[in-house]
Order: sequence, then C-alpha cells, then structure tokens
Amino acid sequence: MTHAQTIQDPGARLHRRLAATAPICVGIDPVADHLPEDFANEDPLHGIERFCEGVLEAISQIAPCTKIQSACFERYGSSGVRTLERIMSHAKTLGLQVILDAKRGDIGISAEHYAAAAAGMDADWVTVNGYLGEDGVAPFRAAGLGVFVLVRTSNPSGDEIQAVETSGGTVAGLVAAMVDRLGRADSGELASTGAVVGATKPEAAAALRRLMPRSPFLLPGYGAQGGGAEGVRAALDGRGGGVLVTASRSIIRAWEQDRGPWIDAVKRAAGRFAEDIQTIVEDAR
Amino acid sequence: MTHAQTIQDPGARLHRRLAATAPICVGIDPVADHLPEDFANEDPLHGIERFCEGVLEAISQIAPCTKIQSACFERYGSSGVRTLERIMSHAKTLGLQVILDAKRGDIGISAEHYAAAAAGMDADWVTVNGYLGEDGVAPFRAAGLGVFVLVRTSNPSGDEIQAVETSGGTVAGLVAAMVDRLGRADSGELASTGAVVGATKPEAAAALRRLMPRSPFLLPGYGAQGGGAEGVRAALDGRGGGVLVTASRSIIRAWEQDRGPWIDAVKRAAGRFAEDIQTIVEDAR
Repeated sequence: MTHAQTIQDPGARLHRRLAATAPICVGIDPVADHLPEDFANEDPLHGIERFCEGVLEAISQIAPCTKIQSACFERYGSSGVRTLERIMSHAKTLGLQVILDAKRGDIGISAEHYAAAAAGMDADWVTVNGYLGEDGVAPFRAAGLGVFVLVRTSNPSGDEIQAVETSGGTVAGLVAAMVDRLGRADSGELASTGAVVGATKPEAAAALRRLMPRSPFLLPGYGAQGGGAEGVRAALDGRGGGVLVTASRSIIRAWEQDRGPWIDAVKRAAGRFAEDIQTIVEDAR
Repeated sequence: MTHAQTIQDPGARLHRRLAATAPICVGIDPVADHLPEDFANEDPLHGIERFCEGVLEAISQIAPCTKIQSACFERYGSSGVRTLERIMSHAKTLGLQVILDAKRGDIGISAEHYAAAAAGMDADWVTVNGYLGEDGVAPFRAAGLGVFVLVRTSNPSGDEIQAVETSGGTVAGLVAAMVDRLGRADSGELASTGAVVGATKPEAAAALRRLMPRSPFLLPGYGAQGGGAEGVRAALDGRGGGVLVTASRSIIRAWEQDRGPWIDAVKRAAGRFAEDIQTIVEDAR
C-alpha cells in the first residue's frame, strides 16, 4: 500500500495524485465485438478480461485513474460480475484510483447495499444518480466512497430534463447545489462529493463550477463527442485544478486506427491524451 | 408457458393479469439480519435464497407480480448476483410477473448492456432512472422489457429535485411527459412504459396521472410509509385501473409481528394486502 492509499478521503487522495500527473481518466468499456484480433478465438468474457488487463497495464504509468463501466460486465450476468471483481482488483494492484461507473441511484438500505457492493470491489469512487435527492447519495459517502453525481451529461437527450429552467436555475443546477451542500462535510482541498459534467457544454460547465467550487468534475465527452479545450478550461476550479477528463473509446480502441501491436496503440493514445490535457490545464494557469 | 406469457408486450401482459387479481406487487428485499429463526445458522446468502424461495411460493397464488431488489443481492458481489439469477428464475417458474428493481440509468450501449442483463434474467419489467432523458429509457423498451421510470419517489429528500417547479410543471412532470411520450409507441390498453409514483402524495399522483393517462403506475409507500387509500385512488386511470401497489417489508417481515410458522404469517399478510387494495380499487369504480 502506498502512502497515498492510506489517506482516507477519496477527494484528498485524488488531489494528491493529480499534483504529479495529468488529470486524466481512462474509461474501460469493453465490448466483445470490438476486441483486437489477438482475442478473436476466445470465449467473449475471457477475451474481455485479458484485454482489460492489458489496457490497465498499458495505461497505469500514464493515467492516475480508471473508470470501469459496470454494465459491460453485468451483461454477462454473475460470471461477468466475477470478471468485474477481478478487473477492479487488478486496477488497484497497479496503483490506479478506480471509479466504478455504475450510475446507481437508490435510497436507504438499498443505497447502503450498493455502497457495500462497490466498497467490496475496492472502488475509490462510484458514479451516482442524484434524482432521488440526498438520500440516494449520502449512503455512498457514509461508506467511505467518493461519489461523482450525474449533474449534466453529454448525451443528446440529457437536456430534456437537465437543462430546463426552474425558479432556482436549471434542473442540473438543483443537483449541483445538492452536490455542493454534501461536499461541505468533506475536508481536504478537493471534496469527495464530485460531479459528472459533459465537456461538450462549456457555458454550462462554467455555471456549474460556480455552484460547486470545491467538487472534482469528472468530464466525459472530450474528443470523441466533440468536447474540446474550452469545455475543460470552463470546468477548472479557482486554482486551475479540480477536473478529471475521461476518455474511453478513443484510448481503448486506438488500435483500430493504428498499426503495430494493439497495446502500443493504446499506450500511445493514452500518452497523447495526457499531453493534450496537461497542456490545456497548464495554459489556463 | 401459459397463454399470458406468450403476449409480447409487458403492458398488455400486465393488463391481462390484473383483470383477474388484486393489483398488488410484493417487493423482495431480503436482509440477512432480518430472516426468520429457521435460517439463523445458515450462511447469510444461502439463508436469503431459501427465504426468498419460501416467500415467492407463499405469495404466488395471491399476488400477480413481484419486485426483486437487485441491491440486496449485489451487496454479496458475484455470488449474490448468481443467487439473484436463481431467484428471478424461480419467480418466473411460479408464474409471477417480475420487476427487477435495479433503478439503472445509463445511455447508449451501456443502457443496452443493462437491458441485456435484465432480459438475461428473464425480467418482465425494470425500474429505470430518467434523469438522462429518453436515451436512458428507450434501450430497455427496445430490448422488449417494460420500464417503470422513477417519477416521484416516496423518500424524504425526493422533493429536493422532483417537486421543484419549472416552466413546464414540476421536475417530476418533465419526466412524466417523457414517460407518456415514449409510451405512445406501445400498443395495448396499458403502455409498457410506466412510472414509479409514491402512494404517499395523493395530489402529486393525481397530477401525474393526468400527464400519463395510459401508463401503469408502480406505487410504493402504501402502509409502512404512510400512504393510504387516497394515494391509490388518485393514481387510478380513467377506467379505474392502471395501478400496481407494491409493499415489501410489511409482507416479507410479517412474521416479526405474528405467531406460528413464518411462511403462514407472510401468506396472511399478502392476503390482507390483496383484500385491502382490491377493496380500495372496487370502491373507486
């Protein structure tokens, strides 16, 4: 166990880690139909497992953090969840901070169960849906997990609900206010109560940053979904930090556009991603 | 396979089933610390499994439907999910219509994965979080599953977000409008796109019914959480139907307040619940 891992607070752990590396996260969302040829003749779930292991090893010296998409494993039922458990464990062994991308959202003891499940997989953070209010978020924090609450997502229909104006700002703004409120209980430079905010909407990101000055922002949508430097800059906190830019397919499927061994393509893509984001963040300071 | 099960559309299947029975659903949310003494010396997960089997057998001649809380099983990791798979299968074998209470909410291929996971467990319906808009709901319908979208929940902090007024009604009303829109693609008397609406807020339920005239309402909160006959009546559709009242702890823990074998206590509680709800619904016609 490294010293960084002995820090109890996920926000403080992340803050310390980001002082030394580019603020990036590599998303792992493997699909059996999109694996490198090396795995063509394997059982799908076994191929997925070996592929994820390779990706994690390729990125572990480049990215501080990985986000693992639970759905990709759950689709294979309990066998898939068993594979997820091993992949989560492998990521931790490599020293990565791990976000379980499960988007859970339930209340009371059910939320406690979900938190126990994520903690049992040794997750540092979990993505959580805030539609049920504090009751759906607090149990994860009580279990010692960091949370990234879905605030403003980058999918086309997200605006149907999230962008609608209320008497107190947008609906996303209501969720943001809850995130900020819960995060006030967190010590450390960075709260352990964070937000998922698409990098595709810079103006919205800037407004949400004002509502959540101390929360880490997990930013999907950079690159592939059209988000650019502007979206990242808008999300930075008062000290030019507090963001974690996440990319999935552009890294883990980089071998589709690149020659040579697939693992080298993944490594190169992760390296370029880290450089791009580091440049954006440094230029903004 | 009964004739009812050959009907493709979950809404049509539910409608047909409700013509012959009380519109109730028994929620299964087992906790190892709250099992009857019979299971005191068993491995917790094994005790949970045998308890759930007993409950399902006890209610299968009384209730048309069961709602199984995924979190209770997920907390035991992949072994728990394996148990969930067997319990889901057992419920189907007994002829129950099964709601997988998973409250999933993701988009695109991740939502497709979750839908595949639920369909793989032979669920008829899944509970879904609508905060991400249509993108988070449509993939479940595309996989042939019925959905109950969280619209207005019965937990204390639900109002923080759901009850806030927007230019187009409450936030819950925005989600309701989406549910109604998606449900228009469903044939049959009852849409396969339904809503979770707490029985604790009759006025809200009545307003939401006007927004979703054809959607089935899954109503938690009756009894234990203070919801009463008024909440159920307010949720009825134009023909005096369209509701599925769900109770969990008051049924599956009825043995805590009752003498004799635990399974008889569960059966009696389910019978009383069915009678109560049937009376409310008939009196309203």
